[in-house]
Amino acid sequence: MPGITIASDIGSRDWLDRAELHGSVSDPLLDTMNFLNEVTHRHPDAISFAPGRPYDGFFDTEQVFTCVRRYLDHLAEQGGSTEDVRTALYQYGPTAGLIRGIIADSLRADEDTDVPAESVVVTVGAQEAMLLVLRALITGPDDVLLVSSPCYVGITGAARLLDVAVRPVPEREDGFSAADLETAVLAELANGRRPKAFYVVPDHSNPSGNTMGPEAREELLDLARRYDFLVLEDSPYRQVSPGTPLPTLKSRDRARRVVHLGSYSKTVFPGARVGFVVADQRVRDAEGGEHLLADELAKIKSMVTVNTSSLSQAAVAGALLGARGRLSQLNAEAAAHYGATLREMLRQLDARLPADRREALGVRWNEPTGGFFLTLRVPFRVDDALVTTSAQDFGVIWTPMTHFHPGTGGHHGIRLSISYLTPAEIEEGTARLARFVEAQCAAL
Amino acid sequence: MPGITIASDIGSRDWLDRAELHGSVSDPLLDTMNFLNEVTHRHPDAISFAPGRPYDGFFDTEQVFTCVRRYLDHLAEQGGSTEDVRTALYQYGPTAGLIRGIIADSLRADEDTDVPAESVVVTVGAQEAMLLVLRALITGPDDVLLVSSPCYVGITGAARLLDVAVRPVPEREDGFSAADLETAVLAELANGRRPKAFYVVPDHSNPSGNTMGPEAREELLDLARRYDFLVLEDSPYRQVSPGTPLPTLKSRDRARRVVHLGSYSKTVFPGARVGFVVADQRVRDAEGGEHLLADELAKIKSMVTVNTSSLSQAAVAGALLGARGRLSQLNAEAAAHYGATLREMLRQLDARLPADRREALGVRWNEPTGGFFLTLRVPFRVDDALVTTSAQDFGVIWTPMTHFHPGTGGHHGIRLSISYLTPAEIEEGTARLARFVEAQCAAL
Repeated sequence: MPGITIASDIGSRDWLDRAELHGSVSDPLLDTMNFLNEVTHRHPDAISFAPGRPYDGFFDTEQVFTCVRRYLDHLAEQGGSTEDVRTALYQYGPTAGLIRGIIADSLRADEDTDVPAESVVVTVGAQEAMLLVLRALITGPDDVLLVSSPCYVGITGAARLLDVAVRPVPEREDGFSAADLETAVLAELANGRRPKAFYVVPDHSNPSGNTMGPEAREELLDLARRYDFLVLEDSPYRQVSPGTPLPTLKSRDRARRVVHLGSYSKTVFPGARVGFVVADQRVRDAEGGEHLLADELAKIKSMVTVNTSSLSQAAVAGALLGARGRLSQLNAEAAAHYGATLREMLRQLDARLPADRREALGVRWNEPTGGFFLTLRVPFRVDDALVTTSAQDFGVIWTPMTHFHPGTGGHHGIRLSISYLTPAEIEEGTARLARFVEAQCAAL
Repeated sequence: MPGITIASDIGSRDWLDRAELHGSVSDPLLDTMNFLNEVTHRHPDAISFAPGRPYDGFFDTEQVFTCVRRYLDHLAEQGGSTEDVRTALYQYGPTAGLIRGIIADSLRADEDTDVPAESVVVTVGAQEAMLLVLRALITGPDDVLLVSSPCYVGITGAARLLDVAVRPVPEREDGFSAADLETAVLAELANGRRPKAFYVVPDHSNPSGNTMGPEAREELLDLARRYDFLVLEDSPYRQVSPGTPLPTLKSRDRARRVVHLGSYSKTVFPGARVGFVVADQRVRDAEGGEHLLADELAKIKSMVTVNTSSLSQAAVAGALLGARGRLSQLNAEAAAHYGATLREMLRQLDARLPADRREALGVRWNEPTGGFFLTLRVPFRVDDALVTTSAQDFGVIWTPMTHFHPGTGGHHGIRLSISYLTPAEIEEGTARLARFVEAQCAAL
C-alpha cells in the first residue's frame, strides 16, 4: 500500500497561517473542568452528572505496589540482572517506551490486533499521543483535522496548542454517518484543503455515548482508503463496558489507515498517566526514506516528555501481566458496575419522564449500552448560566453539550455522566434532573 | 512591578511565519542520542564520554517502594482518609500537580527561594516545562527566544516543535557574557523583533561545564529588567555537585524576571520523569485580567499531558520528605562521587597532556568544579565522522560540540561527560582520548 508522506525530522511549519479557521477551535479541557469544578464547589450538596472520571471504588492502594513488583519480577524472569532491573526502573528509558512488547501482546490477547511492538509508542496518557500524532501528520498549510462533533475536548485542545485547523463533522443523533463525513471531506478538497485525519471515539463516545455500528466502521475504513486520510481511533471505554465490544477499527484495518490511540486511565488507573499509540504506517520522509510513523512520533515525544515514567509503565505492565494481557478480564467487575449504573440511569429517566410525557415536552435521550455518558436532548437553550441555575435551584449539575462542539452547536444538548455515581445518587439525581427539565420546559 | 503580557487562553498563533529563522534550529535530542547510541552499539569495547545520564550505583530498587509509601503515610498524617489517599494515588490529579507544596518547601529549605505553592507547576521532567513556557511566552510573530550557545538540545527541540524563533548568544570559553547578551538583544530589537526570554544553565552547564559567576548573575538579572525579557533558568546539576552552589538566579530575582525550570532526574531519579517550573510572574491576559503565569502553564499542560503521574510524584515527594526537603543532603554522596570523578578526569587529562604539551598542540579544556561535563578544545575540525574514527581506531567515544550549537559553531569543541564512568574507565578512557588527540593533531 502507498506510504503516507509526513514531516521529515519534524520539519518547521513556517507556513502556518490559518486565521480564518482559528475562531472555530474550542476551549481547552481545563476551561470546562474549571467551570464545572467551580459550580460543584459552590454547590456541595448538588448531585453531579458532570465528572467523567472512573469510579474509585475498585482501586486499592496496595495494588500499585503489587503491580510494580510483578513487573520487576517479570524483568528478572526474563533474565534481567539486579542491575538491569534497577536501571529499567530508575534510569532514563527508551523514548518509545519500556513496555511496548507487553502492550502489543495485550492487543493480540484482547483486541484481535496484531501489530509489531515497534509500532507502539508509550505516551503520557492518550493526550500526549494526540499531540504527537497531530504534530507529525499536519505538514502543510492546507492540512485539516476532521473531528466527529460533538467531540472530546482533548483532541481540539491538542489541535489548538499546535495551531491545527479543525473541521467538525456533525454526528447525528444515532451516531456517525459516513455520508456526512464524505460530504465534509469533499467540501475541504473543494476548498483546496487536505483532510489528513479524522478523529473519532467509535465505542460509547465521549460526549455523546453513541457507538458506531459494524457497517459504519467498514464505511469509514473505506472512505479513509478512498480519500487517503488516517483515522485516529480513540476508544477508552470499550473494555469498561458490559458485553463483547465490536471489533476496533484498527483490528479491521487492512490498508493501515488507522492510528489507534490507547489509554489505561479507565482500564488500569488515571494517576499512572500511561497511554499509547499504535502507528504501524510506513511513512516516507522528504529524503524518500521509509520508516514507521511510530518512529516519527517517538522523535517528537523526545521534545515533549523525553520518555514516559518508568515507574508508571511498571505499574501498568504489572496490571497487564497479572491478567495475561486481558484488560477485559481485569475490568470484568468494573464493566458490570458501569453497565448496571447506566441501566439504572435509563430506568430512572424513563420512570421520571415516561414516553408520552417526554414526547409532550420534546425531551429525549439516547440509550448507550456502555461507556460513561449519555446525551439528553431538550427543547430549551442550554448554556453555562443554566448549569448554575440547575445547581442552585434544583441541586443537580451536568455538562452543556456546547463545551464539546468545535465552533457552534449543542445548544439543546446535555451530557450526563454516570461513571462516578452510586445507585442512590442516580435515583435522587434523576428526580432532580426531571424537575429541572419540567421547569425549563414550562418556562418556554 | 509591571505584569508581562502573554497569550490569553492559549490564543492561536496564526501569525507564525518565520522561514528565515527556521534554518537555524538545531536537530532534536533524539537525533544526537540515536547517533551516539549507534556508534556505542557498533563499538561495545569503546569507553564513552558521551552519555549524560546519572550514575546508577546510587539507586536501589527498594527505595522507590519506600518513597511512595512515605508520601502516602504523609497524606494520612495530614488527615487524609484511606479513600483520600487512594484517590490521590489512582485518580486524575490536579493539572498543576499534587506535590507543589512539598516542592515549594524544598526550594525554601535548599535554595533560599520563597515562592507560593501556587506558582509551581509539576511537569513531566523539565522538558515538558520548557514546552509549556515557550508556548505561553511566544505570543507574536516577532518574538524570539535567546539561548546561550552551545546549549542543551531540549530547549531548541521544544522551540522547534513549536516553531519558535531561536537566536543563539555565543558563550565565551570562560562562560556567559552579559555584554554579548546585550548585543544580541539590541540586534534583535533593531530588527524589529522582541527577545521574550533567554534560556541558560547557570551552574555547570550542559554542554560546556561552565558556571556563571556572582557578578554575571546580577548583570543578567539587570539586563532582563532593563530590556523586559524573562530568564529561563535550568539548573539540574547544582545539587549533585560538590561544595556550596552559588545562589540560583531565582533566589536573587527581585523583579520576577526569572522562570525557574526544575528537574528531579539527577537529584532523585530520571525514570520518575518529574520536573517543575516556578512561574510567579503576574501576567495580564488580553482582557486585562491578572493572574500567575503558572496558571497559564497549567492550562497548556492540560493539552499536553493532562497531569503528571501521581505515582511518580509520590515517589519524588517521598524522597523529598525523607530528606526534609534537602536535595543537597539527599545527594551528598552523589555530589562527592561526581566531584571526585571530575577531579580525576582533570588529573588524568593533565597527566596525558601536560601544560607544555597541550600548548604545543593547541589543545585546552575548561576546569569545571562540578556537574557532568567539560569542554575539550582542539585545533582540528570535529564532526560525527570523527566520532566514528575515534571509536573505531582509538576505542573512545565523545560528543561533537556541534550538536549543541543552534545554527553553526562548535567545530573545534568536544563535550566530555564523566557522570557514567568509573575511575578505572576515566584513566583508560583519557589515555585513549590523548592518543586520539595526538594523532589528529599530527595529521594537521
